[in-house]
Amino acid sequence: MDRKVGIVGVGMSKFGRRNDVTVRELSWEAVKEAFEDSGLTQKDIQLTVIGSTAYRGTEIYPAPPVSEYCGLVGKSPLRVEAACATGSSAVFTAVNAIASGMVDIALVIGVDKMTEVDTATSLAIGGRGGNYYWEFHMYGTTFPTYYALYATRHMSLFGTTEEDMALAAVKAHKYASYNEKAHFRNKVTVEDVLKSRVISWPIKLLDSSPISDGAAAAILASEEKIRELKIDTPVWVRAMGYGSDTSYIAARGEWTGLNAAREAAYMAYKVSGYTPHDIEYATVHDCFTIAEIMAYEDLGFVEKGKGTALLREGQTEKDGKVAVNLFGGLKAKGHPLGATGVAMVYEITKQLREEAGPVQHSFKKYVALSHNVGGTGHYAFVGVYSR
Amino acid sequence: MDRKVGIVGVGMSKFGRRNDVTVRELSWEAVKEAFEDSGLTQKDIQLTVIGSTAYRGTEIYPAPPVSEYCGLVGKSPLRVEAACATGSSAVFTAVNAIASGMVDIALVIGVDKMTEVDTATSLAIGGRGGNYYWEFHMYGTTFPTYYALYATRHMSLFGTTEEDMALAAVKAHKYASYNEKAHFRNKVTVEDVLKSRVISWPIKLLDSSPISDGAAAAILASEEKIRELKIDTPVWVRAMGYGSDTSYIAARGEWTGLNAAREAAYMAYKVSGYTPHDIEYATVHDCFTIAEIMAYEDLGFVEKGKGTALLREGQTEKDGKVAVNLFGGLKAKGHPLGATGVAMVYEITKQLREEAGPVQHSFKKYVALSHNVGGTGHYAFVGVYSR
Repeated sequence: MDRKVGIVGVGMSKFGRRNDVTVRELSWEAVKEAFEDSGLTQKDIQLTVIGSTAYRGTEIYPAPPVSEYCGLVGKSPLRVEAACATGSSAVFTAVNAIASGMVDIALVIGVDKMTEVDTATSLAIGGRGGNYYWEFHMYGTTFPTYYALYATRHMSLFGTTEEDMALAAVKAHKYASYNEKAHFRNKVTVEDVLKSRVISWPIKLLDSSPISDGAAAAILASEEKIRELKIDTPVWVRAMGYGSDTSYIAARGEWTGLNAAREAAYMAYKVSGYTPHDIEYATVHDCFTIAEIMAYEDLGFVEKGKGTALLREGQTEKDGKVAVNLFGGLKAKGHPLGATGVAMVYEITKQLREEAGPVQHSFKKYVALSHNVGGTGHYAFVGVYSR
Repeated sequence: MDRKVGIVGVGMSKFGRRNDVTVRELSWEAVKEAFEDSGLTQKDIQLTVIGSTAYRGTEIYPAPPVSEYCGLVGKSPLRVEAACATGSSAVFTAVNAIASGMVDIALVIGVDKMTEVDTATSLAIGGRGGNYYWEFHMYGTTFPTYYALYATRHMSLFGTTEEDMALAAVKAHKYASYNEKAHFRNKVTVEDVLKSRVISWPIKLLDSSPISDGAAAAILASEEKIRELKIDTPVWVRAMGYGSDTSYIAARGEWTGLNAAREAAYMAYKVSGYTPHDIEYATVHDCFTIAEIMAYEDLGFVEKGKGTALLREGQTEKDGKVAVNLFGGLKAKGHPLGATGVAMVYEITKQLREEAGPVQHSFKKYVALSHNVGGTGHYAFVGVYSR
C-alpha cells in the first residue's frame, strides 16, 4: 500500500446476551473506550465505517442511528457486510480509505445484536449465508452442519478425533476465564465437551461458538497523522489479504480447509513480506473447534493434516510458538458477527502493546495475524500487524 | 487521492419488474456488458465490490452467489450498503482500494431485486431506513412521507408548487422514452402528474420513483494499468465526496435540502478542484420530484430556493446549462437501490464518451457529476468525473 496505516485506539464492549442495551448503546461502549484509548474525540474522525450484518436486530440500517448516537453525524456514509467476516471487511475498507489518501483518520465500528431473534431464526438466517437454493432451501443446512461436513472429512483423511477438537474448546474457555468481556468465563474439560449435546455430529454444543451481542471499535490513522499527533504506540497494519469462494459448498474441490482463507493468507504474507514462521500471535476464526484446527493449516503454521499436533503439543498456548486466541476466541469470548473482526484488531493491539495482563504473550519480533472467515469460507480476511 | 482511478467499462441490465431472472442472472446482464465494453475478462479482475441492500430478495447474502455466477470466485470479499446510496458506496470502496495501491483493477456490481416482496413490505423496509423507534415505529412514516415533509417546507418557504415538481416528472419520462433499459418509457404531462393518486400530499404517484429490479456494473482501474492496457477512453474519477446525517429527521436543522448531500458536494468540489459552474452533466437522485429540485440547490447549481427556476427555464434539459438525468432518472429509468449509484456511473461514462445516442449532451469541458442519496439524506455521495 502507498501509505502506512496504524491502529491508534481500540475499544470493545462486554460480549454476551445484552438485553440491557440497544445497538446504539452497545456500539458506544466500544467507541467510547477507543476514544479514551487514543486520546482522540469525534472531531478528529473524518470517516466512520460500520460493519454489521444487521439481520437479527430491530435496526436493519444501523449506520445512521449508531453514528448519530456516537456523535459521528456527517462522517458515516456506509455499512459493510461479509457475513461472519464483516468486522474485517470494515477494517479493510477503512485501511484503503486512509492508504488512498482520501482521509487521515477513520473509525471502524463492528457491531451486531444477534439475540433479538431466537436461536432457530438466527440459525436459519445464518444458513442462508451458504447457497440458498440448494444447500439451505433443499437440505435445511445451517452452520453447524456445514462445519460438520468439513470436520468429518478432516477426521476421515487425517485421523482427527473428537478429543482433538475438544482441546480447542478447553483452551478457549481457559483463556476466556481471564477476560471480563467474554461471553462465557467458565472452564470446561475434554469430557465436558464430549458429553455435551450433539448438534450435528461430530459437532457438539461445546464445539460451537455462541450467538452473542457485542461491539468493537478501532481508530486507524495514516503514518503522517500518527507522527503529527505524536502517538508513540501505533500498531501497524502490514497487510490485509482477502479471498472468497463459491456460495455452493458442494462446488468446492476439497473439504479439509478453506480456500478463501488460504488465498487471503497468501496475499497477506506476500504484501507484508512476513512468513508463517514470523507470526507470534494469531486470532483465528474458531466458530467451531474444527475451524481452529483448519485455520492452523490454512495459515501455514503447520502442514495440511497436522493442525491437531499444535494443539496437543500446546504450541498455540500463551508463550507457545504461535499463541492463538488468548482472549477466548469466538468459541468462548463470543461471536457477534460484525464485531468479531474488529475485536480481533482490539486483541492484537492489546497484545502487541503488551497490555494484555494475565494473558500477555511474550513477543520477540512483535508480529501478529488476524484470520476472520465469513460464511463457511465464503469470504476471508487475513491481516498482518506489527508494533 | 494518491493514484488516479479511471472507469474502463460499464454495463447495465434492463430495469423494471424482472421476475424472469434471479439476482445472479440479473447481475450477469450488467457484468457481461461491462466486460464486453472494456475488453477485459474475469481473469483481469482483482477485487469485486458488491453493492446491494438485499432486504427484499431471497438472497440476503448476495455477494457469494452473485460472484460465483459471474465467474468471480476468489475476488469478492465484501458487500457494502448505504440504503439508496448503496451503489455509490460500492464505487467509493473500489476507488479507495485502487487509489491505495491494494489492487489495480476492480469491478463494482450494484444490484437489487426489490419486487420479490409486495409494495407495502418494501415501503415498510424502506421506512426503517429512517429512525426506527421514533419516526417509523411510532408514526409509521415511510419514504413518501419523509419527502412530503421536505416538499411542504420547500413550498412554504420558497413558493414551490405542485406544478413545479410535476415538471421534473415530465422531464424524466420524456428522456426515459429514449432508454430501452428504463423501467417506464411512457411520456407524461403535468396534468397526468397532478391528477395521479396522492400518496402523501403533495407527493403523488407520478412524483415517485418506482420499486424496480436491476443491476449495473463498472470496471475501474489505476492510471498505470489503463496506460498498460492502452485503454484510450477512460473516464476519470476526480473525486468521491461523502456525507451523512442524523437518523432522526426531526433532529435536523432545516427541511428544504439535504445536509449530507451538501457536505458530499463540498468535499467533491474541494478534492476535484471543480466548481458547480464547471459541471455540464449531472445524475441527481430524483427518488421524488422534490428531491431533484433540492439537488439542484444542494449541489450549488443555483442558490437555495431557486431550484424550480432551472426546471422552468429548461436549463437542465439536453444541451442546457447543466443537463440532468437524460437516461430518465430514478423517477422513470427506475430505482433498484444497489444498482442506482452504479447506473449513474454507467450513464456518466456513456455521456462523457459521447455514446449516448439520441440523448447525447453537448460537452465543452467534459465534466460531470453524480449525486446519490441514501435514506432521506442519511447518507450521500457526490462524484465528479471528467474525460
